[in-house]
Amino acid sequence: MKAYKDLSKDELRSLQTELQAQYEKLKESNIKLDMSRGKPGTDQLDLSLPMLDVLSGSTESFACADGTDLRNYGSLDGIPEAKALFADLMECPTDHVMVFGNSSLNIMYDLISRAMIHGIGGNTPWCRQEKIKFLCPVPGYDRHFAITESFGIEMINIPMDENGPDMDMVEQYVNHDSAVKGIWNVPKYTNPAGVVYSDEVVRRFANLKPAAPDFRIFWDNAYTIHHVYTDKKVEMLNIVEECEKAGNPDIYYELCSTSKVTFPGSGVAALVTSPANVAEVKKTLTLQTIGFDKINQMRHVLFFKNAEGMKAHMDKHAQILKPKFEAVLNCLEKELGGLEIGSWIKPLGGYFIAFDTIEGCAKRVISLCKEAGVVMTPAGSTYPYKKDPADTSIRIAPTLPTPEELRQACEVFVLCVKLASVEKYLENK
Amino acid sequence: MKAYKDLSKDELRSLQTELQAQYEKLKESNIKLDMSRGKPGTDQLDLSLPMLDVLSGSTESFACADGTDLRNYGSLDGIPEAKALFADLMECPTDHVMVFGNSSLNIMYDLISRAMIHGIGGNTPWCRQEKIKFLCPVPGYDRHFAITESFGIEMINIPMDENGPDMDMVEQYVNHDSAVKGIWNVPKYTNPAGVVYSDEVVRRFANLKPAAPDFRIFWDNAYTIHHVYTDKKVEMLNIVEECEKAGNPDIYYELCSTSKVTFPGSGVAALVTSPANVAEVKKTLTLQTIGFDKINQMRHVLFFKNAEGMKAHMDKHAQILKPKFEAVLNCLEKELGGLEIGSWIKPLGGYFIAFDTIEGCAKRVISLCKEAGVVMTPAGSTYPYKKDPADTSIRIAPTLPTPEELRQACEVFVLCVKLASVEKYLENK
Repeated sequence: MKAYKDLSKDELRSLQTELQAQYEKLKESNIKLDMSRGKPGTDQLDLSLPMLDVLSGSTESFACADGTDLRNYGSLDGIPEAKALFADLMECPTDHVMVFGNSSLNIMYDLISRAMIHGIGGNTPWCRQEKIKFLCPVPGYDRHFAITESFGIEMINIPMDENGPDMDMVEQYVNHDSAVKGIWNVPKYTNPAGVVYSDEVVRRFANLKPAAPDFRIFWDNAYTIHHVYTDKKVEMLNIVEECEKAGNPDIYYELCSTSKVTFPGSGVAALVTSPANVAEVKKTLTLQTIGFDKINQMRHVLFFKNAEGMKAHMDKHAQILKPKFEAVLNCLEKELGGLEIGSWIKPLGGYFIAFDTIEGCAKRVISLCKEAGVVMTPAGSTYPYKKDPADTSIRIAPTLPTPEELRQACEVFVLCVKLASVEKYLENK
Repeated sequence: MKAYKDLSKDELRSLQTELQAQYEKLKESNIKLDMSRGKPGTDQLDLSLPMLDVLSGSTESFACADGTDLRNYGSLDGIPEAKALFADLMECPTDHVMVFGNSSLNIMYDLISRAMIHGIGGNTPWCRQEKIKFLCPVPGYDRHFAITESFGIEMINIPMDENGPDMDMVEQYVNHDSAVKGIWNVPKYTNPAGVVYSDEVVRRFANLKPAAPDFRIFWDNAYTIHHVYTDKKVEMLNIVEECEKAGNPDIYYELCSTSKVTFPGSGVAALVTSPANVAEVKKTLTLQTIGFDKINQMRHVLFFKNAEGMKAHMDKHAQILKPKFEAVLNCLEKELGGLEIGSWIKPLGGYFIAFDTIEGCAKRVISLCKEAGVVMTPAGSTYPYKKDPADTSIRIAPTLPTPEELRQACEVFVLCVKLASVEKYLENK
């Protein structure tokens, strides 16, 4: 098959007629599928069911290592056992760990909120500084951007390639503009592109020389053990170690959670950061809450025992995810290979496949899909202010549907990509 | 026994010698007791153990009433079953209820934080208004005051009597000063005095005509079913109904939680407010979190079934609490009755007994207790900025120790009250 860009106007016209006919036929089959949400499938949730029984009404003791009764007030920033579990997982000392409730998003929101109201490291609160800017590697996680937008923080797009964000640009901003206070990252298996930050990128992050003393790297390591292939697990440099080596021990906030390990909503989230940052966060945390769910923290500890236990558990997730990712990737390859109307990275982990259309087509593809019964993440969602300047970026979420549903949804998707691309080329002829 | 105020200088001196000798002897017995924290005792925690088993790995279905899988993302502001449970308990329609995580304190902190950053009802965010003031009925809950203090909100003391806050003063401030944006209340079994707001007080709250359009009543109904006597349960007017009747449907945020019903830290908290306020809170909540622990919400629903179930459960708590409260109250009556060196209200519910010394003695009593091995809540804690102007207010928390420990601790306490009072009278002779 020829690349669409090389087709003549007449060839494009006849192709359009043909595709349009296929599309009308597909529409008649009353498809109703959802590839929009990064939600685990039911079979993945079933994997963690035994966790619900590791503690029961007849459990002999509810004392945790420091003597606190799990069922009572106390242990504001996590029980010692849960800190140890996350320290083991994130490969850092336990005094770098705070264990919270069920949502790392909530931790991040509160970190920003705290910086706005109370400031960071004794500096003027952000709400009383003239202008606050955040760097946003794109495409990225829509909820990160929604948080910064809600606080009136100006967001600056930073392009990414297969190694991570454009570090020349990051250094230029961070090291020279004191209004730049943070950068959002999902460093491993980025949402949505599946990129893993290279060693050089991590080292350059650790060695930033911020113009602002209250600048922080937000290192949302949401997918650190979320591999798709059990035989292709990617390792990444440890941000804690690299920042300490670089003499920048307080520059990062690293986040992780078990939302996609055990149960979204009933998982446990943790903040990994320097002891100085831990002490600062604790000061306002004590105003904010009476503490988090220690019983649920202990459920996780007893279920996994250690990082090895969590990793073994993630292998089971990978076995469920692999056929789903492959159903999509195979369909893309088979249907779009050689047509030069789209590009995608084959991710080795995470929850998404990022697809790039030719310029100016993403919105049209999403809208065609919707009309044919397939719901995709809205175009633009992966950019600050929901504005994808080139209108090319589409996020495919393959985890919730069954492989069979995915094949069907993907069939619709590729047809819509073809149709939108032909329309675009005809527009420009 | 004569009242201390009627003793001569010589009588006071010889009494002091006698008390001092008793005190030195008590110190030698190496007492180590804690009456400082409003924590449930272990026997109270045991009451809710069966709740840990109402859901298990072999539970057949995890779907809640709206079809959401309890184990997955979704139901941002609570599962329908949990909303129904709290609506039943708080006697309001379900569309007035949002069910959150484990901490009503966290809900309140976030309500203030949200008002600071985003504003209320489309009005200018508090952080961009010149001055923000809160009314604080005293004595009150230290963590309320700590929240407002941390946001730089000016706090104004409002005296309370056995019917609730001084409503003349409340109306004067709220209806005439547009910088007054809120008032903290624990309306039933107040912390620490155990006062229940009278019908007139509740109606006057509902009928406030605030100068500020973004004024809200914070109605922390923390002890709504927390009775000490199963045969003396106090009823109070419903703030939701009264505000609606008064044409002030959006003026209140009512809070409640199961922290002292099931497990502190592993309970469920709810916000009760008008549908308009619910919609406003939801708008920022969606930025802030992926939702709360639905599995734990369902545990509570299955364990209690309805408000009747919760109330029956609270009777078991009362049976445990009554002898503890009575151990303290009997000791106070027996040892201090007639001496006119202290006053206290016999609370019918809640978690505390408030004790008032003669002027300028509270700090000295607490410090004497500490020296003798009995830890009390620090003096001043129940006032904004930890400043009790008259230095009279002491909070006794009788729930955690056993009745035997309480009798011992109370013996120390009354001796310290006597000693401090004698010292004070001698100072002034």
